[in-house]
Amino acid sequence: MTAIADREAVLFANEAFYRAFCDRDIDAMDRTWGRVEPVACIHPGWPPLHGRDAVMASWTRILVNPQAPRIACVAPRAFVWGDTAMVVCHEDIQGQALVATNLFRREKDGWRLVHHQASPAPGLPEPDPDAPPQRPN
Amino acid sequence: MTAIADREAVLFANEAFYRAFCDRDIDAMDRTWGRVEPVACIHPGWPPLHGRDAVMASWTRILVNPQAPRIACVAPRAFVWGDTAMVVCHEDIQGQALVATNLFRREKDGWRLVHHQASPAPGLPEPDPDAPPQRPN
Repeated sequence: MTAIADREAVLFANEAFYRAFCDRDIDAMDRTWGRVEPVACIHPGWPPLHGRDAVMASWTRILVNPQAPRIACVAPRAFVWGDTAMVVCHEDIQGQALVATNLFRREKDGWRLVHHQASPAPGLPEPDPDAPPQRPN
Repeated sequence: MTAIADREAVLFANEAFYRAFCDRDIDAMDRTWGRVEPVACIHPGWPPLHGRDAVMASWTRILVNPQAPRIACVAPRAFVWGDTAMVVCHEDIQGQALVATNLFRREKDGWRLVHHQASPAPGLPEPDPDAPPQRPN
């Protein structure tokens, strides 16, 4: 794969994560997370969670809540280093701005999340006039 | 290098980052950051910074401030994937708890930071009675 194709694939995996979040789809969220490597997750204001069981239990707790907020990923930037990749992006949670680091590992069936940290940001970035249009979540 | 030796080396690089922060040593901070790959940094409450110039300018702005807080790294956990590694840890900033993700790449002269995100945490973890003693910062 070319570096550009790898970045596209990582951004696609990142989009799948936010789509699962937005759809409150626990099975889809489960599929976005890795099964090979240890995983970790830091939700805003939470202590770090370590291990797949703790991380997936947290997502189940968040996604079963009918009041779970709508979320959109804004201005993702992907970095690929071999079989490890990172996306830094903003998150728009019904007008509240967060910033996130999403770390991925290449598993045999594609890029899977191994770490996520989201935390408050001072605002959302200005739209980039050169960016391709975002698919709606 | 063995996996254990790699983890030790990454934790050492992580410690060097916090020592540079604690000592307000801009040259040492500069040495902890990578020179080969693009770097990024998300300070608590800041927008993400991209590129070495922006990241180092932010550290200079923080470290030249004589009121810069004392910081200690608490309970670091290292993950190594080939030439990329991550440390998830708490930060104790004069009693205020933060949680951080520090991402490293192996460069020819050692592990160097390529990304840092720190954000508020609900508290510091309980001390692990089985953990080796931390070197004082």
